[in-house]
Amino acid sequence: MRRFVIIGHRADTTGNFKLDDVCGGAGRLDVLIRCVNSAFFLSHSIRRDVEVFLILQGGEDAPKTIRFCGDELRYLNPDERSTASLIRNALLKKVAEKEIRASPGIYVSRKSFEEILVDLAKGGELLYLKENGKDIRDVRLEGDLIFVLGDDRDLSKEEERILSVHASETLSLGPASYHSDHCITLVNNELDRRGL
Amino acid sequence: MRRFVIIGHRADTTGNFKLDDVCGGAGRLDVLIRCVNSAFFLSHSIRRDVEVFLILQGGEDAPKTIRFCGDELRYLNPDERSTASLIRNALLKKVAEKEIRASPGIYVSRKSFEEILVDLAKGGELLYLKENGKDIRDVRLEGDLIFVLGDDRDLSKEEERILSVHASETLSLGPASYHSDHCITLVNNELDRRGL
Repeated sequence: MRRFVIIGHRADTTGNFKLDDVCGGAGRLDVLIRCVNSAFFLSHSIRRDVEVFLILQGGEDAPKTIRFCGDELRYLNPDERSTASLIRNALLKKVAEKEIRASPGIYVSRKSFEEILVDLAKGGELLYLKENGKDIRDVRLEGDLIFVLGDDRDLSKEEERILSVHASETLSLGPASYHSDHCITLVNNELDRRGL
Repeated sequence: MRRFVIIGHRADTTGNFKLDDVCGGAGRLDVLIRCVNSAFFLSHSIRRDVEVFLILQGGEDAPKTIRFCGDELRYLNPDERSTASLIRNALLKKVAEKEIRASPGIYVSRKSFEEILVDLAKGGELLYLKENGKDIRDVRLEGDLIFVLGDDRDLSKEEERILSVHASETLSLGPASYHSDHCITLVNNELDRRGL
Protein backbone atom coordinates (compact mmCIF):
# COMPACT_ATOMS: atom_id res chain seq x y z
CA MET A 1 0.00 0.00 0.00
CA ARG A 2 1.21 3.49 -0.90
CA ARG A 3 -0.06 6.46 1.00
CA PHE A 4 0.42 10.17 0.40
CA VAL A 5 -0.30 12.84 3.03
CA ILE A 6 -0.40 16.40 1.66
CA ILE A 7 -0.88 19.47 3.81
CA GLY A 8 -3.03 22.22 2.28
CA HIS A 9 -1.93 25.11 4.45
CA ARG A 10 -4.65 27.52 3.32
CA ALA A 11 -7.01 25.05 1.62
CA ASP A 12 -10.66 25.82 2.31
CA THR A 13 -12.58 23.59 4.72
CA THR A 14 -16.06 25.12 4.36
CA GLY A 15 -16.90 24.14 0.77
CA ASN A 16 -17.83 27.76 0.18
CA PHE A 17 -15.87 28.36 -3.03
CA LYS A 18 -16.50 28.46 -6.76
CA LEU A 19 -15.29 25.71 -9.06
CA ASP A 20 -13.94 28.47 -11.31
CA ASP A 21 -11.69 29.72 -8.54
CA VAL A 22 -9.96 26.78 -6.86
CA CYS A 23 -6.62 28.64 -6.84
CA GLY A 24 -7.70 31.83 -5.14
CA GLY A 25 -10.98 31.40 -3.30
CA ALA A 26 -10.29 27.82 -2.26
CA GLY A 27 -6.77 28.52 -0.93
CA ARG A 28 -4.68 26.76 -3.59
CA LEU A 29 -6.89 23.72 -3.60
CA ASP A 30 -5.69 23.30 -7.20
CA VAL A 31 -2.34 22.05 -5.85
CA LEU A 32 -4.04 19.31 -3.84
CA ILE A 33 -6.28 18.34 -6.74
CA ARG A 34 -3.27 17.79 -8.97
CA CYS A 35 -1.76 15.63 -6.22
CA VAL A 36 -4.87 13.43 -6.30
CA ASN A 37 -4.49 13.09 -10.06
CA SER A 38 -0.81 12.09 -9.82
CA ALA A 39 -1.45 9.66 -7.01
CA PHE A 40 -4.20 7.65 -8.71
CA PHE A 41 -4.14 7.86 -12.49
CA LEU A 42 -2.57 5.39 -14.84
CA SER A 43 -3.35 5.48 -18.56
CA HIS A 44 -6.21 3.07 -18.48
CA SER A 45 -6.92 2.56 -14.80
CA ILE A 46 -6.86 3.92 -11.28
CA ARG A 47 -4.21 2.76 -8.83
CA ARG A 48 -6.20 0.71 -6.36
CA ASP A 49 -3.29 0.30 -3.91
CA VAL A 50 -3.07 4.03 -3.15
CA GLU A 51 -4.62 6.12 -0.40
CA VAL A 52 -4.39 9.94 -0.26
CA PHE A 53 -4.93 12.20 2.74
CA LEU A 54 -5.50 15.89 2.07
CA ILE A 55 -5.07 17.84 5.30
CA LEU A 56 -7.02 21.06 4.84
CA GLN A 57 -6.03 23.84 7.21
CA GLY A 58 -7.74 26.92 5.80
CA GLY A 59 -11.09 28.55 6.46
CA GLU A 60 -13.36 28.64 9.49
CA ASP A 61 -13.97 24.92 9.74
CA ALA A 62 -10.31 23.80 9.91
CA PRO A 63 -8.84 21.30 10.23
CA LYS A 64 -10.47 18.71 8.02
CA THR A 65 -9.02 15.69 6.29
CA ILE A 66 -10.29 14.32 2.99
CA ARG A 67 -9.29 10.69 2.48
CA PHE A 68 -9.30 9.14 -0.99
CA CYS A 69 -9.31 5.37 -0.96
CA GLY A 70 -8.15 3.89 -4.29
CA ASP A 71 -9.87 0.54 -4.03
CA GLU A 72 -13.29 2.15 -3.54
CA LEU A 73 -12.98 5.23 -5.77
CA ARG A 74 -15.51 5.94 -8.49
CA TYR A 75 -16.36 9.10 -10.44
CA LEU A 76 -12.75 10.35 -10.31
CA ASN A 77 -11.73 12.07 -13.54
CA PRO A 78 -8.33 13.54 -14.36
CA ASP A 79 -9.40 17.16 -14.87
CA GLU A 80 -9.14 19.64 -11.99
CA ARG A 81 -12.69 20.88 -12.09
CA SER A 82 -14.36 17.53 -11.54
CA THR A 83 -12.07 16.64 -8.62
CA ALA A 84 -12.72 20.08 -7.10
CA SER A 85 -16.41 19.25 -7.28
CA LEU A 86 -15.91 15.96 -5.41
CA ILE A 87 -13.93 17.72 -2.68
CA ARG A 88 -16.46 20.52 -2.34
CA ASN A 89 -19.22 17.94 -2.04
CA ALA A 90 -17.28 16.27 0.81
CA LEU A 91 -16.69 19.60 2.60
CA LEU A 92 -20.39 20.47 2.46
CA LYS A 93 -21.34 17.30 4.39
CA LYS A 94 -22.04 17.68 8.08
CA VAL A 95 -19.26 15.96 9.93
CA ALA A 96 -19.03 15.59 13.71
CA GLU A 97 -16.47 13.48 15.54
CA LYS A 98 -16.41 10.43 13.29
CA GLU A 99 -15.18 10.22 9.71
CA ILE A 100 -18.04 10.00 7.20
CA ARG A 101 -18.30 8.81 3.61
CA ALA A 102 -19.04 11.63 1.16
CA SER A 103 -19.02 9.60 -2.07
CA PRO A 104 -17.54 6.25 -3.18
CA GLY A 105 -13.94 6.17 -1.93
CA ILE A 106 -13.99 9.71 -0.52
CA TYR A 107 -14.21 10.32 3.22
CA VAL A 108 -14.14 13.46 5.35
CA SER A 109 -13.21 13.89 9.00
CA ARG A 110 -12.11 16.58 11.44
CA LYS A 111 -8.73 14.96 11.98
CA SER A 112 -5.63 17.14 12.18
CA PHE A 113 -2.22 16.50 10.64
CA GLU A 114 -0.95 15.14 13.95
CA GLU A 115 -3.91 12.78 14.43
CA ILE A 116 -3.49 11.41 10.90
CA LEU A 117 0.22 10.80 11.46
CA VAL A 118 -0.41 9.02 14.75
CA ASP A 119 -2.94 6.73 13.00
CA LEU A 120 -0.72 6.02 10.01
CA ALA A 121 2.51 5.46 11.93
CA LYS A 122 0.97 2.30 13.39
CA GLY A 123 0.74 0.66 9.97
CA GLY A 124 3.75 1.68 7.89
CA GLU A 125 6.93 3.66 7.45
CA LEU A 126 6.59 7.45 7.31
CA LEU A 127 8.85 9.28 4.87
CA TYR A 128 9.19 13.03 4.48
CA LEU A 129 9.68 14.38 0.95
CA LYS A 130 11.96 17.40 0.97
CA GLU A 131 14.66 18.85 -1.27
CA ASN A 132 17.55 18.19 1.09
CA GLY A 133 16.77 14.52 1.79
CA LYS A 134 18.53 11.35 0.67
CA ASP A 135 18.04 10.50 -2.99
CA ILE A 136 15.07 8.11 -3.23
CA ARG A 137 16.94 6.04 -5.84
CA ASP A 138 19.63 5.21 -3.27
CA VAL A 139 17.30 4.17 -0.45
CA ARG A 140 15.95 0.74 0.34
CA LEU A 141 12.15 0.81 0.39
CA GLU A 142 9.82 -1.96 1.49
CA GLY A 143 6.47 -2.63 3.09
CA ASP A 144 3.71 -0.08 3.46
CA LEU A 145 5.05 3.39 2.77
CA ILE A 146 3.58 6.75 3.70
CA PHE A 147 4.95 9.85 2.00
CA VAL A 148 4.35 13.26 3.58
CA LEU A 149 4.69 16.55 1.72
CA GLY A 150 3.51 20.15 1.65
CA ASP A 151 1.43 21.98 -0.95
CA ASP A 152 2.95 25.10 -2.51
CA ARG A 153 4.38 25.94 0.92
CA ASP A 154 6.91 23.99 2.92
CA LEU A 155 5.91 22.39 6.19
CA SER A 156 6.04 24.83 9.10
CA LYS A 157 8.58 24.35 11.88
CA GLU A 158 5.80 22.99 14.09
CA GLU A 159 4.62 20.55 11.39
CA GLU A 160 8.19 19.40 10.88
CA ARG A 161 8.51 18.84 14.63
CA ILE A 162 5.33 16.71 14.68
CA LEU A 163 6.49 14.76 11.65
CA SER A 164 9.97 14.19 13.09
CA VAL A 165 8.43 12.13 15.91
CA HIS A 166 7.13 9.60 13.36
CA ALA A 167 9.20 9.84 10.16
CA SER A 168 12.10 7.46 9.63
CA GLU A 169 13.77 9.32 6.77
CA THR A 170 13.74 12.45 4.61
CA LEU A 171 13.88 11.71 0.89
CA SER A 172 14.53 13.89 -2.13
CA LEU A 173 13.56 13.21 -5.74
CA GLY A 174 16.26 14.91 -7.72
CA PRO A 175 18.37 18.05 -8.02
CA ALA A 176 15.45 20.44 -8.64
CA SER A 177 12.61 21.66 -6.44
CA TYR A 178 9.43 20.08 -7.80
CA HIS A 179 5.73 20.79 -7.46
CA SER A 180 3.96 18.44 -5.04
CA ASP A 181 2.02 16.60 -7.77
CA HIS A 182 5.21 16.07 -9.75
CA CYS A 183 6.84 14.62 -6.62
CA ILE A 184 4.02 12.09 -6.33
CA THR A 185 4.42 11.08 -9.98
CA LEU A 186 8.14 10.49 -9.36
CA VAL A 187 7.51 8.44 -6.22
CA ASN A 188 4.90 6.30 -7.97
CA ASN A 189 7.32 5.62 -10.82
CA GLU A 190 10.14 4.66 -8.45
CA LEU A 191 7.87 2.25 -6.59
CA ASP A 192 6.52 0.82 -9.87
CA ARG A 193 10.09 0.12 -10.96
CA ARG A 194 10.78 -1.72 -7.72
CA GLY A 195 7.57 -3.74 -7.92
CA LEU A 196 6.37 -2.31 -4.61
CA MET B 1 17.21 22.51 -24.88
CA ARG B 2 14.37 20.12 -24.14
CA ARG B 3 11.39 19.94 -26.44
CA PHE B 4 8.11 18.09 -26.09
CA VAL B 5 5.73 17.47 -28.99
CA ILE B 6 2.27 16.26 -27.96
CA ILE B 7 -0.46 15.31 -30.41
CA GLY B 8 -3.99 16.34 -29.42
CA HIS B 9 -5.94 14.00 -31.64
CA ARG B 10 -9.33 15.62 -31.10
CA ALA B 11 -8.19 18.90 -29.50
CA ASP B 12 -10.19 21.87 -30.70
CA THR B 13 -8.59 24.31 -33.16
CA THR B 14 -11.37 26.92 -33.38
CA GLY B 15 -11.25 28.39 -29.84
CA ASN B 16 -14.99 27.86 -29.70
CA PHE B 17 -15.20 26.11 -26.32
CA LYS B 18 -16.03 26.97 -22.74
CA LEU B 19 -13.33 27.13 -20.07
CA ASP B 20 -15.63 24.98 -17.90
CA ASP B 21 -15.56 22.20 -20.48
CA VAL B 22 -12.00 21.63 -21.67
CA CYS B 23 -12.41 17.85 -21.40
CA GLY B 24 -15.53 17.43 -23.49
CA GLY B 25 -16.15 20.45 -25.68
CA ALA B 26 -12.47 21.14 -26.33
CA GLY B 27 -11.60 17.53 -27.26
CA ARG B 28 -9.55 16.53 -24.22
CA LEU B 29 -7.59 19.76 -24.23
CA ASP B 30 -7.22 19.14 -20.48
CA VAL B 31 -4.62 16.46 -21.27
CA LEU B 32 -2.50 18.91 -23.24
CA ILE B 33 -2.85 21.59 -20.58
CA ARG B 34 -1.47 19.24 -17.95
CA CYS B 35 1.43 18.48 -20.29
CA VAL B 36 2.25 22.20 -20.43
CA ASN B 37 2.23 22.31 -16.63
CA SER B 38 4.58 19.31 -16.31
CA ALA B 39 6.92 20.63 -18.97
CA PHE B 40 7.48 24.08 -17.46
CA PHE B 41 6.84 24.25 -13.75
CA LEU B 42 9.39 24.00 -11.01
CA SER B 43 8.52 25.00 -7.45
CA HIS B 44 9.65 28.57 -7.69
CA SER B 45 10.31 29.10 -11.37
CA ILE B 46 9.54 28.20 -14.96
CA ARG B 47 11.94 26.04 -16.94
CA ARG B 48 13.39 28.46 -19.47
CA ASP B 49 15.17 25.75 -21.47
CA VAL B 50 11.94 24.00 -22.51
CA GLU B 51 9.78 24.36 -25.59
CA VAL B 52 6.40 22.63 -26.03
CA PHE B 53 4.51 21.99 -29.26
CA LEU B 54 0.83 21.10 -28.97
CA ILE B 55 -0.37 19.67 -32.28
CA LEU B 56 -4.13 20.21 -32.35
CA GLN B 57 -5.98 18.01 -34.80
CA GLY B 58 -9.64 18.48 -33.88
CA GLY B 59 -12.32 20.85 -35.11
CA GLU B 60 -12.91 22.64 -38.40
CA ASP B 61 -9.68 24.63 -38.42
CA ALA B 62 -7.23 21.72 -38.02
CA PRO B 63 -4.34 21.33 -37.92
CA LYS B 64 -2.89 24.04 -35.72
CA THR B 65 0.22 24.04 -33.57
CA ILE B 66 0.55 26.02 -30.37
CA ARG B 67 4.18 26.58 -29.42
CA PHE B 68 5.17 27.50 -25.86
CA CYS B 69 8.62 28.99 -25.58
CA GLY B 70 9.98 28.80 -22.02
CA ASP B 71 12.41 31.67 -22.22
CA GLU B 72 9.69 34.12 -23.27
CA LEU B 73 6.71 32.81 -21.29
CA ARG B 74 4.75 35.07 -18.99
CA TYR B 75 1.30 34.77 -17.44
CA LEU B 76 1.54 30.97 -17.20
CA ASN B 77 -0.05 29.63 -14.04
CA PRO B 78 -0.21 26.02 -12.92
CA ASP B 79 -4.00 25.59 -12.86
CA GLU B 80 -5.79 24.13 -15.88
CA ARG B 81 -8.31 26.89 -16.33
CA SER B 82 -5.81 29.71 -16.81
CA THR B 83 -3.74 27.72 -19.33
CA ALA B 84 -6.94 26.83 -21.20
CA SER B 85 -7.62 30.54 -21.42
CA LEU B 86 -4.17 31.24 -22.92
CA ILE B 87 -4.69 28.49 -25.51
CA ARG B 88 -8.17 29.67 -26.42
CA ASN B 89 -6.82 33.17 -26.85
CA ALA B 90 -4.18 31.83 -29.27
CA LEU B 91 -6.76 29.84 -31.24
CA LEU B 92 -9.00 32.88 -31.66
CA LYS B 93 -6.22 34.83 -33.40
CA LYS B 94 -6.38 35.01 -37.17
CA VAL B 95 -3.50 33.00 -38.51
CA ALA B 96 -2.59 32.60 -42.17
CA GLU B 97 0.56 30.94 -43.49
CA LYS B 98 3.08 32.29 -41.00
CA GLU B 99 3.29 31.55 -37.28
CA ILE B 100 2.08 34.46 -35.16
CA ARG B 101 2.61 35.47 -31.53
CA ALA B 102 -0.56 35.25 -29.45
CA SER B 103 0.89 36.31 -26.09
CA PRO B 104 4.37 36.37 -24.52
CA GLY B 105 5.98 33.00 -25.27
CA ILE B 106 2.90 31.52 -26.98
CA TYR B 107 2.74 31.17 -30.75
CA VAL B 108 0.17 29.69 -33.11
CA SER B 109 0.59 28.35 -36.64
CA ARG B 110 -1.13 26.08 -39.13
CA LYS B 111 1.71 23.59 -39.11
CA SER B 112 0.93 19.88 -39.09
CA PHE B 113 2.63 17.14 -37.08
CA GLU B 114 4.78 16.23 -40.08
CA GLU B 115 5.88 19.83 -40.72
CA ILE B 116 6.83 20.28 -37.06
CA LEU B 117 8.88 17.08 -37.08
CA VAL B 118 10.69 18.08 -40.27
CA ASP B 119 11.60 21.43 -38.68
CA LEU B 120 12.71 19.95 -35.37
CA ALA B 121 14.70 17.04 -36.81
CA LYS B 122 17.18 19.58 -38.19
CA GLY B 123 18.17 20.73 -34.70
CA GLY B 124 18.12 17.76 -32.36
CA GLU B 125 17.46 14.11 -31.67
CA LEU B 126 13.83 12.94 -31.88
CA LEU B 127 12.73 10.35 -29.35
CA TYR B 128 9.37 8.59 -29.24
CA LEU B 129 7.88 7.90 -25.80
CA LYS B 130 5.98 4.62 -25.79
CA GLU B 131 5.41 1.78 -23.37
CA ASN B 132 7.42 -0.81 -25.28
CA GLY B 133 10.58 1.28 -25.76
CA LYS B 134 14.00 1.02 -24.13
CA ASP B 135 14.12 2.13 -20.51
CA ILE B 136 15.15 5.80 -20.46
CA ARG B 137 17.42 5.12 -17.47
CA ASP B 138 19.54 2.78 -19.60
CA VAL B 139 19.96 5.07 -22.59
CA ARG B 140 22.69 7.61 -23.23
CA LEU B 141 21.18 11.06 -23.79
CA GLU B 142 22.95 14.18 -24.94
CA GLY B 143 22.48 17.39 -26.89
CA ASP B 144 19.13 18.88 -27.83
CA LEU B 145 16.39 16.34 -27.25
CA ILE B 146 12.87 16.27 -28.66
CA PHE B 147 10.34 13.92 -27.05
CA VAL B 148 7.19 12.99 -28.99
CA LEU B 149 4.08 11.54 -27.39
CA GLY B 150 0.32 11.21 -27.78
CA ASP B 151 -2.49 12.62 -25.65
CA ASP B 152 -4.94 10.13 -24.15
CA ARG B 153 -4.73 8.20 -27.43
CA ASP B 154 -1.72 6.48 -28.92
CA LEU B 155 -0.23 7.74 -32.15
CA SER B 156 -2.05 6.41 -35.21
CA LYS B 157 -0.27 4.06 -37.60
CA GLU B 158 0.20 6.95 -40.03
CA GLU B 159 1.63 9.21 -37.31
CA GLU B 160 3.99 6.45 -36.24
CA ARG B 161 5.11 6.06 -39.84
CA ILE B 162 5.82 9.80 -40.13
CA LEU B 163 7.68 9.76 -36.82
CA SER B 164 9.71 6.68 -37.75
CA VAL B 165 11.38 8.68 -40.55
CA HIS B 166 12.87 11.06 -37.98
CA ALA B 167 13.03 9.36 -34.56
CA SER B 168 16.24 7.69 -33.49
CA GLU B 169 14.82 5.68 -30.59
CA THR B 170 11.68 4.64 -28.74
CA LEU B 171 11.93 5.12 -24.97
CA SER B 172 9.79 3.92 -22.10
CA LEU B 173 9.59 5.37 -18.62
CA GLY B 174 8.80 2.40 -16.44
CA PRO B 175 6.71 -0.72 -16.14
CA ALA B 176 3.32 1.04 -16.11
CA SER B 177 1.40 2.98 -18.73
CA TYR B 178 1.45 6.62 -17.68
CA HIS B 179 -0.57 9.71 -18.55
CA SER B 180 1.22 12.05 -20.96
CA ASP B 181 1.79 14.77 -18.36
CA HIS B 182 3.24 12.24 -15.93
CA CYS B 183 5.60 11.05 -18.71
CA ILE B 184 6.88 14.60 -19.15
CA THR B 185 7.49 14.94 -15.40
CA LEU B 186 9.52 11.72 -15.48
CA VAL B 187 11.56 12.84 -18.50
CA ASN B 188 12.31 16.22 -16.92
CA ASN B 189 13.48 14.52 -13.74
CA GLU B 190 15.74 12.12 -15.63
CA LEU B 191 17.33 15.00 -17.57
CA ASP B 192 17.69 17.07 -14.37
CA ARG B 193 19.55 14.18 -12.77
CA ARG B 194 21.94 14.00 -15.74
CA GLY B 195 22.51 17.75 -15.78
CA LEU B 196 21.14 18.01 -19.34
